[in-house]
Amino acid sequence: ERDKYETNDVAGVVTGLAWTSVGGDILFIESIISKGKGLSITGNLGKVMKESATIAMEYIRANADEFCISQKLLDEYKVHIHVPEGATPKDGPSAGITMLTSLVSVFTQRKVKSKLAMTGEITLRGKVLPVGGIKEKILAAKRANIKELILCKDNEKDVLEIKDSYLKGLKFHYVSEMKEVIDIALTKQKVKNAKKF
Amino acid sequence: ERDKYETNDVAGVVTGLAWTSVGGDILFIESIISKGKGLSITGNLGKVMKESATIAMEYIRANADEFCISQKLLDEYKVHIHVPEGATPKDGPSAGITMLTSLVSVFTQRKVKSKLAMTGEITLRGKVLPVGGIKEKILAAKRANIKELILCKDNEKDVLEIKDSYLKGLKFHYVSEMKEVIDIALTKQKVKNAKKF
Amino acid sequence: ERDKYETNDVAGVVTGLAWTSVGGDILFIESIISKGKGLSITGNLGKVMKESATIAMEYIRANADEFCISQKLLDEYKVHIHVPEGATPKDGPSAGITMLTSLVSVFTQRKVKSKLAMTGEITLRGKVLPVGGIKEKILAAKRANIKELILCKDNEKDVLEIKDSYLKGLKFHYVSEMKEVIDIALTKQKVKNAKKF
Amino acid sequence: ERDKYETNDVAGVVTGLAWTSVGGDILFIESIISKGKGLSITGNLGKVMKESATIAMEYIRANADEFCISQKLLDEYKVHIHVPEGATPKDGPSAGITMLTSLVSVFTQRKVKSKLAMTGEITLRGKVLPVGGIKEKILAAKRANIKELILCKDNEKDVLEIKDSYLKGLKFHYVSEMKEVIDIALTKQKVKNAKKF
Amino acid sequence: ERDKYETNDVAGVVTGLAWTSVGGDILFIESIISKGKGLSITGNLGKVMKESATIAMEYIRANADEFCISQKLLDEYKVHIHVPEGATPKDGPSAGITMLTSLVSVFTQRKVKSKLAMTGEITLRGKVLPVGGIKEKILAAKRANIKELILCKDNEKDVLEIKDSYLKGLKFHYVSEMKEVIDIALTKQKVKNAKKF
Amino acid sequence: ERDKYETNDVAGVVTGLAWTSVGGDILFIESIISKGKGLSITGNLGKVMKESATIAMEYIRANADEFCISQKLLDEYKVHIHVPEGATPKDGPSAGITMLTSLVSVFTQRKVKSKLAMTGEITLRGKVLPVGGIKEKILAAKRANIKELILCKDNEKDVLEIKDSYLKGLKFHYVSEMKEVIDIALTKQKVKNAKKF
Ligand SMILES: [Ca+2]
Ligand SMILES: [Ca+2]
Ligand SMILES: [Ca+2]
Ligand SMILES: [Ca+2]
Ligand SMILES: [Ca+2]
Ligand SMILES: [Ca+2]
Ligand SMILES: [Ca+2]
Ligand SMILES: [Ca+2]
Ligand SMILES: [Ca+2]
Ligand SMILES: [Ca+2]
Ligand SMILES: [Ca+2]
Ligand SMILES: [Ca+2]
Repeated sequence: ERDKYETNDVAGVVTGLAWTSVGGDILFIESIISKGKGLSITGNLGKVMKESATIAMEYIRANADEFCISQKLLDEYKVHIHVPEGATPKDGPSAGITMLTSLVSVFTQRKVKSKLAMTGEITLRGKVLPVGGIKEKILAAKRANIKELILCKDNEKDVLEIKDSYLKGLKFHYVSEMKEVIDIALTKQKVKNAKKF
Repeated sequence: ERDKYETNDVAGVVTGLAWTSVGGDILFIESIISKGKGLSITGNLGKVMKESATIAMEYIRANADEFCISQKLLDEYKVHIHVPEGATPKDGPSAGITMLTSLVSVFTQRKVKSKLAMTGEITLRGKVLPVGGIKEKILAAKRANIKELILCKDNEKDVLEIKDSYLKGLKFHYVSEMKEVIDIALTKQKVKNAKKF
Repeated sequence: ERDKYETNDVAGVVTGLAWTSVGGDILFIESIISKGKGLSITGNLGKVMKESATIAMEYIRANADEFCISQKLLDEYKVHIHVPEGATPKDGPSAGITMLTSLVSVFTQRKVKSKLAMTGEITLRGKVLPVGGIKEKILAAKRANIKELILCKDNEKDVLEIKDSYLKGLKFHYVSEMKEVIDIALTKQKVKNAKKF
Repeated sequence: ERDKYETNDVAGVVTGLAWTSVGGDILFIESIISKGKGLSITGNLGKVMKESATIAMEYIRANADEFCISQKLLDEYKVHIHVPEGATPKDGPSAGITMLTSLVSVFTQRKVKSKLAMTGEITLRGKVLPVGGIKEKILAAKRANIKELILCKDNEKDVLEIKDSYLKGLKFHYVSEMKEVIDIALTKQKVKNAKKF
Repeated sequence: ERDKYETNDVAGVVTGLAWTSVGGDILFIESIISKGKGLSITGNLGKVMKESATIAMEYIRANADEFCISQKLLDEYKVHIHVPEGATPKDGPSAGITMLTSLVSVFTQRKVKSKLAMTGEITLRGKVLPVGGIKEKILAAKRANIKELILCKDNEKDVLEIKDSYLKGLKFHYVSEMKEVIDIALTKQKVKNAKKF
Repeated sequence: ERDKYETNDVAGVVTGLAWTSVGGDILFIESIISKGKGLSITGNLGKVMKESATIAMEYIRANADEFCISQKLLDEYKVHIHVPEGATPKDGPSAGITMLTSLVSVFTQRKVKSKLAMTGEITLRGKVLPVGGIKEKILAAKRANIKELILCKDNEKDVLEIKDSYLKGLKFHYVSEMKEVIDIALTKQKVKNAKKF
């Protein structure tokens, strides 16, 4: 059964796109923080998807200024990243930008843009890399009531191969840099009942 | 051999519903706390079910205020979660809300509602997700002398497919949010001989 | 080769009952403590039997008052639990009450009742759960010169199915609560040369 | 799909050469540092490639003076090394000199020479060892717009077996010592927006 | 190739008996201590043999007085136990008394009796348990120039089944308690160049 | 492709002898130290070869005086041991004396004797044990331009079986004790640019 887009009321919850054996689907990356140390990851994830979470977290640590996150906050809070639904094994690097966005949102309490989904691998040099399954992911996004998508610039050619009628009602953002993802995905305003640090 | 509902005298003990190779059964999630640090989990559990315990605990850490649990209590106590019966391997995400309820009960010493069982996956954004095996679980609940059930709103359609005669004597609570689970499942009163913190 | 009952001179040594591929046998649960932190477990044990030791220890930590064990003692001593004989792999939850009794004995230095054996699973809510292999275990107990047995109330029906002549000379204690086990199994007196804490 | 050389704007990003089942390719070694302790490694790497990262890091620790890196910096910063692309498993010792260069670059913020790639195993005695797949790696380097290559002196004979026309436009540096790699690969100038320590 | 008895010049080196696929052999248990914490074990050992080392160490910790070993010494020194020869995998509980003797010797610097070998399982209640392969082990002991043997009392029956001519020149000590092993195996005198603590 | 002897300019680098599926070869054991704690080991090594490194390190810790290494140095420095070449899996106990020599050299900065190779298992009682593959190892040593060899006394018989013409130009040292290895292998002088502690 496929998921639908949900509201963006909670910081740290971002919509990604998955490519599974039964076609595409959306998935949610959820991050929460609490006083403590370390990074824990759940959601029946394989090694590569867990690595994406580590990469996203380390990138933020090394570039905290750029995201206006204080070193103190990173030092004093522990992060938990979860990807529902536990019964489904998940793997691969394509949730990278979704995880990065989720983490920046939870540490800044900035609101995620409404009806937005994304897919793309991240790197430590700040580049976004292309991923597979674009067609299936886009069909799933439409079905799930997504209106905007962030993809890697190098995935544009995959979109151009899809029939126009399938793309109707979808706005595409093609990016090369991880900074662009954050600029597009996170609004300037904080979520309601934002955590005070 | 199937289990029966037991009394709600002890904080931290909550009745869940399991779907096994031999049909449905009830199961108990048991939590205790003592001075110390960390979370330990036993009961012959698979990876996904252990992850549910981690998710529940991290959610409580990040939302301690909402459950009226002091940060100090979370910092100074260690938690042990156990799921009898050790001889039976158990897995899957469906004990999520039962684990959450168990943990909130043991940290608040609030009494669990009598003759209540529940099943549903939890998320870090506070939503309850639907789970499988609803029919088998409901039959097991009746057999075990359960009177009220908490299910995900998205599982209502599974209940509607069950013959009315099977549902007689059962009251259903359909929920979307994890907060609703706690409001329904935990009474305002503390257990007898409640721990003083 | 089957074991015989041994004396109860040493605190922390309790006789359990095992159900193996070659029939029933008694086994010994041995606990010792020394200055330090943590719980170590040996004896060629499987995952579930190791979990029993963890459950017993955590239950004691959370209910130390009830067993008249001081928090200070629990904080300052490390525990080692061993189950001879190393060449035989052992598993399952049925040594739970034996482990609990062993730990309470070693922390209180109370003497274990003479010629007593026991079998039953433990829970964090203080209940004793029934276990399998009752007939084989009872025959082994007789052979080993055991005179009294502690079993779960729910295992009484298994005993009633055994021919009376096999049960001659054995006294049965049926229990529901873990507290009852301790009351029956441990005498009021301390062992000779009891450790001073 | 094969990768292209990218710019050398970011410290800690160095171009290596990989030999895969579908021929040669370039790969990027990316290192970042942030306040903290330890070394984490991602990129779907096998045991030997992870060991290369450890060897490079330990070599730098033991020879910090030689690279003008202060002990204080090494003590106070944690390192994360990543090798995109997560979907591709990678292994082997041949990225050793690339990892060493990446780490020295990130700790000194020195700029990596433009359009340079390298391949070679490292040792704790400071020697560079030859590696396999030289022909495939060189073809991949050309395709990726690389202009200079660092190889082990002992790999020169593999280059001499390649047709001259394939080598046109490529400059080769043959090295025996790890120091030579750093001297060739890192410029004297720092990257723009270099981290201040 | 079979081993020969060696001299008892070094504290912590004790001769055991092994039963292998090619017959019996002697083996050496070697323990050393140095400032630090913890217990490390090498020698290509299986899980049960490693557990024997843990049991021996924990037994000594809990009964330090009995062996005249100060708590301070146990707190401040780390132990390493090794069983040559690394190329041969070894397992089983029968080196238990040999490990215990080795540890007591290294912590007291008491000299091990000359031309003595032993085999037997240990328990936390201080009993020695019988082991298998007695005939093969005794033949190996003779071949290795051993003159005295410590065995479990329950293994006496296995010795009685062996032809007298095979036993000529061997003196047997049958023990039930671990204390007896130490009394027989360790002389009152310290080794030459004994460590000063 | 087989390796050649290299110079002895660097402390901690010692030449060993390996017996592989394609015949004998020399190998290098490389150790470096830096401020910190612990022992890390790389080189695609199996369990037994890693254990050799642990044994060597623990032996040095327990006998630091004998090697004129201060306790302070051992406490304040971490050690990394590497065995090139990463692409080749390696295992077995025969590099023991080579690892011991490498560690003593790096901690004392004493120069290793020129054109020397060695092979032999180590023990905690200070004995050197014989190893296999002597003929293949000696042929490899000659090919690699080695002039002196350290072998276990018990391996002398293996050398005597080799045709004299194969042994021409090689000097053999047969040893029983680990101390003898160090006396032969390490010169009195320090390496050039020796580390100051
Ligand atoms: Ca879904
Ligand atoms: Ca995604
Ligand atoms: Ca059941
Ligand atoms: Ca449930
Ligand atoms: Ca037995
Ligand atoms: Ca039992
Ligand atoms: Ca590529
Ligand atoms: Ca490379
Ligand atoms: Ca042998
Ligand atoms: Ca033995
Ligand atoms: Ca080689
Ligand atoms: Ca060697």
